[in-house]
Amino acid sequence: MVFHTTPSHASKYLFRQLFEKDSSTYTYLLADVSHPQKHAVLIDPVDKTVDRDLSLIHNLGLKLIYAVNTHVHADHVTGTGMLKSKVSGVISVISKASNAKADLLVESGDRIVVGDLVLEVLPTPGHTVGCVTYVTGDGPDQPQPRIAFTGDALLIRGCGRTDFQGGSSAELYKSVHSQIFSLPEETLVYPAHDYKGFTVSTVGEEKQYNPRLTKDKETFKSIMENLNLAYPKMIDVAVPANMVCGLQDPVPTTH
Amino acid sequence: MVFHTTPSHASKYLFRQLFEKDSSTYTYLLADVSHPQKHAVLIDPVDKTVDRDLSLIHNLGLKLIYAVNTHVHADHVTGTGMLKSKVSGVISVISKASNAKADLLVESGDRIVVGDLVLEVLPTPGHTVGCVTYVTGDGPDQPQPRIAFTGDALLIRGCGRTDFQGGSSAELYKSVHSQIFSLPEETLVYPAHDYKGFTVSTVGEEKQYNPRLTKDKETFKSIMENLNLAYPKMIDVAVPANMVCGLQDPVPTTH
Ligand SMILES: [Fe+2]
Ligand SMILES: [Fe+2]
Repeated sequence: MVFHTTPSHASKYLFRQLFEKDSSTYTYLLADVSHPQKHAVLIDPVDKTVDRDLSLIHNLGLKLIYAVNTHVHADHVTGTGMLKSKVSGVISVISKASNAKADLLVESGDRIVVGDLVLEVLPTPGHTVGCVTYVTGDGPDQPQPRIAFTGDALLIRGCGRTDFQGGSSAELYKSVHSQIFSLPEETLVYPAHDYKGFTVSTVGEEKQYNPRLTKDKETFKSIMENLNLAYPKMIDVAVPANMVCGLQDPVPTTH
Repeated sequence: MVFHTTPSHASKYLFRQLFEKDSSTYTYLLADVSHPQKHAVLIDPVDKTVDRDLSLIHNLGLKLIYAVNTHVHADHVTGTGMLKSKVSGVISVISKASNAKADLLVESGDRIVVGDLVLEVLPTPGHTVGCVTYVTGDGPDQPQPRIAFTGDALLIRGCGRTDFQGGSSAELYKSVHSQIFSLPEETLVYPAHDYKGFTVSTVGEEKQYNPRLTKDKETFKSIMENLNLAYPKMIDVAVPANMVCGLQDPVPTTH
């Protein structure tokens, strides 16, 4: 089996992977640089690294249009709200199923269009009730191989926990198998986190080597029920903030 | 200016960027997967992540041939020696100018060949006396755009310090301008480290936005002389180990 690793159409589409070390979060910048307006999207921006991301966007001459979340994160505050307050016209995006607030609430089959680049919305609940995967289109003008931004549904050789935020191991198993593992094997997998220093995988690789999702459903459920993970450190701060995409109502001044 | 970001020939060459968090080091895996033997090279492997890297190489069905260093690192122990002891036939590589021991000592103009993939050796001293940049060839069967593995000579929006290991700010300035900034602007820059979560840049981007190397030579030298950096934590352990590419003589057993 040949594993492809880098999207083509390199001269038409810009792609950058960015890392936030404290929460081991990956943020992705995509743009169609063939269009004069150079529209761009950030997937899973982090509050701490918003200035880095905006500086890069400025250097590259891009115009940020969408700030997109794969789900309501529990381990960091999304940069979506800060991006909206710093760049006028930015549209925040999250799934309708997340019950979070955002400018645009997406559902299965919806498409986010950035220049000629298409991101299709695949529902992949299980880590949280509202997790989605964004996957690039399969047309001839789209990146080849396709690129899947899987959030915490599918991590490289792992997956997100299923014990908070409406999580369900049975749902996650179904989501990954029906929505992600059904994509072409060479599809690139770019997750929201990695804790071991991997940057990318492929659908083919995870179908063969993911230590959890290669198991049968009952074994998977048992693995997920016995992880004995600690209570998420940031959850009580991050989830309320992320339910409004990081955009808090202005604090009334009382001086 | 259009910035390209991902190498083409995705189906012929495999490329993976890997991260070691403690030292913020990037290791790169490259292979020619179009050849039945699937020869591979690791650039700047780290001792702590050798098992991760070998597991990935095994999963991908590759055969590791070369373990290459851009220079004698001072902040981590290279994985080269461990790779040699775990995989028979692996050839360690470092520059002749480094005065370090290795199976293969390379000089300006030398080429490392992995399947059809060519890595050319560019001398880029200044961070250390023996730093080299490995850049992919410019033939039609090579990745487009070209990929430069710059070690610590050129970092994204930065550069390596010049106050140890035969470092020289004047040399580094000359190296980057003559050897790296003379490459095509779309050439991808993959450094040995990043501390802000960037994963890649381009020659064009660094020529325009690198806060140090866009300055004139005297200003650059003054910046480098006034960094006031702490003594490198790991240097007294890492440099002696890396002068032999991490391969210590076996300790004689005295029982
Ligand atoms: Fe999450
Ligand atoms: Fe170094």
